[in-house]
Amino acid sequence: MTHLPAPDARRIDLNADLGEGFGPWALADDDALLRLVTSANVACGFHAGDPMIMRATTSVAVERGVSIGAHVAYRDLAGFGRRFLAVTPAELTADVVYQIGALDAFARLAGDRVRYVKPHGALYNAIVRHVEQARAVVDGVVAYDATLPIVGMSGSAVLRLAREAGLPVVHEVFADRGYAPDGSLVPRGTPGAVLHDPVEVADRALRLVTEGVVVASDGSEIAVEADSVCVHSDTPGAVALLTEVRRALEASGVVVQAIGR
Amino acid sequence: MTHLPAPDARRIDLNADLGEGFGPWALADDDALLRLVTSANVACGFHAGDPMIMRATTSVAVERGVSIGAHVAYRDLAGFGRRFLAVTPAELTADVVYQIGALDAFARLAGDRVRYVKPHGALYNAIVRHVEQARAVVDGVVAYDATLPIVGMSGSAVLRLAREAGLPVVHEVFADRGYAPDGSLVPRGTPGAVLHDPVEVADRALRLVTEGVVVASDGSEIAVEADSVCVHSDTPGAVALLTEVRRALEASGVVVQAIGR
Amino acid sequence: MTHLPAPDARRIDLNADLGEGFGPWALADDDALLRLVTSANVACGFHAGDPMIMRATTSVAVERGVSIGAHVAYRDLAGFGRRFLAVTPAELTADVVYQIGALDAFARLAGDRVRYVKPHGALYNAIVRHVEQARAVVDGVVAYDATLPIVGMSGSAVLRLAREAGLPVVHEVFADRGYAPDGSLVPRGTPGAVLHDPVEVADRALRLVTEGVVVASDGSEIAVEADSVCVHSDTPGAVALLTEVRRALEASGVVVQAIGR
Amino acid sequence: MTHLPAPDARRIDLNADLGEGFGPWALADDDALLRLVTSANVACGFHAGDPMIMRATTSVAVERGVSIGAHVAYRDLAGFGRRFLAVTPAELTADVVYQIGALDAFARLAGDRVRYVKPHGALYNAIVRHVEQARAVVDGVVAYDATLPIVGMSGSAVLRLAREAGLPVVHEVFADRGYAPDGSLVPRGTPGAVLHDPVEVADRALRLVTEGVVVASDGSEIAVEADSVCVHSDTPGAVALLTEVRRALEASGVVVQAIGR
Repeated sequence: MTHLPAPDARRIDLNADLGEGFGPWALADDDALLRLVTSANVACGFHAGDPMIMRATTSVAVERGVSIGAHVAYRDLAGFGRRFLAVTPAELTADVVYQIGALDAFARLAGDRVRYVKPHGALYNAIVRHVEQARAVVDGVVAYDATLPIVGMSGSAVLRLAREAGLPVVHEVFADRGYAPDGSLVPRGTPGAVLHDPVEVADRALRLVTEGVVVASDGSEIAVEADSVCVHSDTPGAVALLTEVRRALEASGVVVQAIGR
Repeated sequence: MTHLPAPDARRIDLNADLGEGFGPWALADDDALLRLVTSANVACGFHAGDPMIMRATTSVAVERGVSIGAHVAYRDLAGFGRRFLAVTPAELTADVVYQIGALDAFARLAGDRVRYVKPHGALYNAIVRHVEQARAVVDGVVAYDATLPIVGMSGSAVLRLAREAGLPVVHEVFADRGYAPDGSLVPRGTPGAVLHDPVEVADRALRLVTEGVVVASDGSEIAVEADSVCVHSDTPGAVALLTEVRRALEASGVVVQAIGR
Repeated sequence: MTHLPAPDARRIDLNADLGEGFGPWALADDDALLRLVTSANVACGFHAGDPMIMRATTSVAVERGVSIGAHVAYRDLAGFGRRFLAVTPAELTADVVYQIGALDAFARLAGDRVRYVKPHGALYNAIVRHVEQARAVVDGVVAYDATLPIVGMSGSAVLRLAREAGLPVVHEVFADRGYAPDGSLVPRGTPGAVLHDPVEVADRALRLVTEGVVVASDGSEIAVEADSVCVHSDTPGAVALLTEVRRALEASGVVVQAIGR
Repeated sequence: MTHLPAPDARRIDLNADLGEGFGPWALADDDALLRLVTSANVACGFHAGDPMIMRATTSVAVERGVSIGAHVAYRDLAGFGRRFLAVTPAELTADVVYQIGALDAFARLAGDRVRYVKPHGALYNAIVRHVEQARAVVDGVVAYDATLPIVGMSGSAVLRLAREAGLPVVHEVFADRGYAPDGSLVPRGTPGAVLHDPVEVADRALRLVTEGVVVASDGSEIAVEADSVCVHSDTPGAVALLTEVRRALEASGVVVQAIGR
């Protein structure tokens, strides 16, 4: 029997990157992850994802009530979209539109549609501060569908510009990443950048969601707005981590609920 | 002053391949061609076409009332989609959906939508007879939008399967290509495969449109169904050729009119 | 202590496909496989393999005395080189030269050089019978280095043309694949196409190497020339299979020895 | 009849970017340019250039005594290598080796070898100051062949590091680009960035070569070391420009002579 959530229950989305294979290659246990997340950031072919994978991923996502997001990226398959690329704004806007459109075709085939946009990798990081590229991404989303939310970090240029353009925004937190005292993420490669212990990660997720607080790398508590929790899919233990995060949230009465639902 | 066409006037579409550049490269005089055709087969990124070019091409097409078709192709940029590729049906269907979706995003940005699908190059030729690939293309179009016409050759497997699937079909003729007595095209590289004289090409176009007849390579007259005349865009003299074809058709009272209008 | 092999000992090469990742993706347990094979077919970037992976793979191969072969393929990353592509002979020759040259650069950095060429996937299969493409591959190898052996199947067009061109040839057998009575491989997808039991595969390898005989799908024994045994690297259990094959061969006094040594 | 140059004649190389097509696309009049330059920077497949084009370009270059240089670039075909890409040093070194090796295969087929390396586009510009990437390029060249000269700008990080690593260096000047007072190029898009008048460009080339001086954008004369003059190939009028530059140099007794001859 399903309990209805209390009307005042805290709600949170759980998102992960999915469909990040290409041709013969796979990266994550997508089938398991699609049982745990409420929103799937689906690769659109520029950093990963080919049409077969996009079709399969969107189909399973829709079957399971998982929201589909366009995980738009720089055109850099060899670098998996993890390398900054100095695209012009016009190029980036067109690249964003192309990727959303291609994914939306598969989302519609599966009976739903793209419900949000989350930039990937180096692009995600760049548009925290790179105003020109941030604006170009916002322009692409607005041009495609001015009701699509953008997922990003609190305080980022892209969310500020998205709000100014009238787009809904989704504040994302990272349960398995260290935070610096200024609210930015501890850079990968630095000690404490990535957390691996499922219980610790679940605890952080819980405080982020219920209190809006995370303990930064210097021990201080910082406030972070949290609409969606991202757990990385391409690390060993991703499934275990996400399982524990979801369990802990639900055990505390938090309702996990997809973006756009 | 604009004359209304006589209600019983013969109508014909003029199509050409457009947007077939990539990055710094261009292939044809797209601006001139977009003043002459009524339908533009726009490359979708697999054999040519990048998002910037797709955006620009669809924008000009819509401004000028030219219908936008998805010029779907094998994924083969180095070979410009002119080499047969033994894709599986599932791959091909997904590739077709991806390309239509990406182009449709730009068509919608420009205020219109993709109005038809025309396979490109080696894929076009393959699905005259390759039933599996023909069915895969039809499946992709049906899945995306079961009202989209497919452009192909009379007597081809793809048009037969499209009709069986309930799709509208557009019978295409080639004014600048030689026909064999069986209605197939004289293979490129054979004498008489490609015609270059604008007046001769225009004459052939006129007979094709008004009489449904073309003189084959052995001198015999063969009957060919003609809904749309294709003039190749990537040959020197393409603009002159198309100018003369359009002039000749209109001078004879034929109404040039886009697919789907 | 190392025993010298008896001067009349049967010698055989063991080869597998290596370096078949791309960007963030890996396919096989290359490190384990490079402890077991004597020759490594290294992907050159067209079906798999990026420069970082090529550098790492060739470096480990040379450290361990494993011969480096250029695993040349159709340019088809999305299809992993497993789809026939109708390249022209001139294109294919140039594609072969490009790939060998790129890999040779890394082989030389590591202190060795490319010691043989083995076509990959659909190209390997095509040039069993496709004379034009077979000749184009031979032309590419001859143009690059007319002393480089080509690895192929007994009775194939490519080995016949290679011999005619004065190239050394290496007859390859497949210990984990079923053979049809005519000496061709049972097509994948057919029952008995791929064998998974390490002991059975090792037994077949042993008979192939010591007797030149394999039991075909109809139970008959057929003669097969064997200079090198291929064990597939991209199947689960590849390492166990190869371990058992090598153990069985060495236990029977067969000397495993790399191509070109 | 050929005059021998006076033993004390000023010698200069003339280089241009060649082979910058891809698949069906071409960018410049390579045949005409290969009659005018002494050194050809040949695209290696990452920003432009496919194996067919590389084979043809190197073949004509060798026939005409033109030196072949590896025009190595970021892997960015859609952006033509004109967008900065934040590759890691290890990636960049491997990318450089791959490209030199692939081109060298064709140079050797044509009877010569790669005689120098000139980074392309955004990479060329980045390594004027980006020390990590500059070092990665130098590492790649040293690893491939520690006698290969690198072509770059006077005062650049890459030439400094190349000298420290024992590589020969070639100081390049741009006859058709404006110089800022600090010796850097006036950025494209700024007035005076690109010069189009053949006589003016030829005059600048002549002063650069014979006096080592160029008039900067503020009217001041600045000293520039000149071993090779680059004339851009992808601008309208490139052939006329290069014709006039070569004529003016030879008329003044300057000997045009390829890198590495």
